[in-house]
Amino acid sequence: MVASTASRLSPPRFSTPSPSLHPPNRRSRFSPVRAAKLEAVLSIGAHLIPHPRKAASGGEDAFFANSDAGGVFAIADGVSGWAEKNVNPALFSRELMRNSSNFLNDEAVSHDPQILLMKAHAATSSIGSATVIIAMLEKTGTLKIASVGDCGLKVIRKGQVMFSISPQEHYFDCPYQISSEAEGQTYKDALVCSVNLMEGDIIVSGSDGLFDNIFDQEIVSIISESPSVDEAAKALAELARKHSVDVRFDSPYSMEARSRGFDVPWWKKLLGGKLIGGKMDDITVVVAQVKTVVVPEDEVQGGDTEEQKGNEQGAAAVVAYKMNDEEVA
Amino acid sequence: MVASTASRLSPPRFSTPSPSLHPPNRRSRFSPVRAAKLEAVLSIGAHLIPHPRKAASGGEDAFFANSDAGGVFAIADGVSGWAEKNVNPALFSRELMRNSSNFLNDEAVSHDPQILLMKAHAATSSIGSATVIIAMLEKTGTLKIASVGDCGLKVIRKGQVMFSISPQEHYFDCPYQISSEAEGQTYKDALVCSVNLMEGDIIVSGSDGLFDNIFDQEIVSIISESPSVDEAAKALAELARKHSVDVRFDSPYSMEARSRGFDVPWWKKLLGGKLIGGKMDDITVVVAQVKTVVVPEDEVQGGDTEEQKGNEQGAAAVVAYKMNDEEVA
Repeated sequence: MVASTASRLSPPRFSTPSPSLHPPNRRSRFSPVRAAKLEAVLSIGAHLIPHPRKAASGGEDAFFANSDAGGVFAIADGVSGWAEKNVNPALFSRELMRNSSNFLNDEAVSHDPQILLMKAHAATSSIGSATVIIAMLEKTGTLKIASVGDCGLKVIRKGQVMFSISPQEHYFDCPYQISSEAEGQTYKDALVCSVNLMEGDIIVSGSDGLFDNIFDQEIVSIISESPSVDEAAKALAELARKHSVDVRFDSPYSMEARSRGFDVPWWKKLLGGKLIGGKMDDITVVVAQVKTVVVPEDEVQGGDTEEQKGNEQGAAAVVAYKMNDEEVA
Repeated sequence: MVASTASRLSPPRFSTPSPSLHPPNRRSRFSPVRAAKLEAVLSIGAHLIPHPRKAASGGEDAFFANSDAGGVFAIADGVSGWAEKNVNPALFSRELMRNSSNFLNDEAVSHDPQILLMKAHAATSSIGSATVIIAMLEKTGTLKIASVGDCGLKVIRKGQVMFSISPQEHYFDCPYQISSEAEGQTYKDALVCSVNLMEGDIIVSGSDGLFDNIFDQEIVSIISESPSVDEAAKALAELARKHSVDVRFDSPYSMEARSRGFDVPWWKKLLGGKLIGGKMDDITVVVAQVKTVVVPEDEVQGGDTEEQKGNEQGAAAVVAYKMNDEEVA
């Protein structure tokens, strides 16, 4: 039996498949010592493709991205079930993102994504609910994350996914969600975690419309081929959209559904039918790359610079809910 | 097509499958405000079963666990390829764990698992290499993790895996590894991350011998049935061991191997053969549960208590490389 008799194959001397995997000194660490001169910042690209049937209204996803102060982005996915109650599911997610952007420089938030979520949620008056993720890069290179529900985030380093967050759900297809109703989740229910990043690391984040329709290896492959974060975000969204409308694509979503015991009706099974296909949904993608900027020592010492940057952040923020409303062919 | 036409099923009003999923006030948050009175600590259980052919020598995994100062544990998996060079692969992993335990209270370490790894690695004089994970719980409830290679760690909350770390590898079955050789990885290559935990959260960590042979749903199921962390660790190790010697079990390892293009020889394929089975290996499991302890205000205010605790830690530490050497039936 091949699998169970194979010993760990790693040799004492490494024969790395490609020398380019280990470029000397490529990966700076943002250690406290170096932080006096080098600061980590995010270069951010984003792309949103609404659900084919919601293209006219822009869909129910929303996001904001802000490259100031290290780099911050957030994604909210409005829960579509609200449409059954004659509530537009987009209102809540869009207002939540607007408020997240507005509170970014609130003193109480103090670069804590969970507190930002608390403030933004408290200020949101629309009826509805949404899954949400907020991520903030510290100047030291630490990415701080607060997530409620099934928006995803992965970090790619040296061509492999080296960090990934897990979705939270009540049951299959019913994620945790920030809500206008008391029964919903709050910032207290968020998955709060952080990961130390290095120069060159790529963050891929998105609504479940992305991760339900694309595999990790496809993400890694597209990232390796894309010349910029903008083009990577667009390519990822477009591949996910293509898969989402492909009834023959065995998507992560359909594989997960089958593993949970969902299936086609018995009569379809008799005809050889199988639960398969992509999942049509709004698809939001944020791709961010960690870069370093050199900051003069005296700027680092003083506390004023950050404050000034902070006051200008509002203008630089992008709050978006619709970047691409083209119809599916 | 069922999968792609299904809208997000979550209703505006939640029909939670079981009321026990939301016990009121069960999950305390260790907020800075509450930290004055409540501190998070780990209750830790561990179990090690050596590779069936390495039972006499205790195998090449090693670990240490220390419930003082919040709670710390570490696992190292000696890379077996060294045996081909007439080097006992267990020496490096065991010395690395001894040194990790010894440096726990070193001032420079200051509760940083990455620095602890640096110190322990620098002090290790044995020839060899090992994958390694070190995890430390802060009193505030933040679990800090440094990992090199493919030891795993998952956090289970409310019956679902809510956090999980990704393995790092050069190529299939060749993980990143801390080494006596300059070509190996160092603390700088570690995945460094943290996750905010809540009272009741369960951490399951282990060498790849655990996660190659057991699925998440099995882990969640065993955790829900086990009366203590010790029994959970033992039950997880025993199920993984059972699967590891089962040539018909379609393990996470064999599924991963197939997805990477590995397969049985063509003549076996013609006979209907398939790459399947568990992976025999040393299996180390650490299970830890987050609990809270009430600390009198005056103890929290003073800095002496922690110092005193620190000085006593050495005695409380457990460094182990072999807890169960029974032969496989």
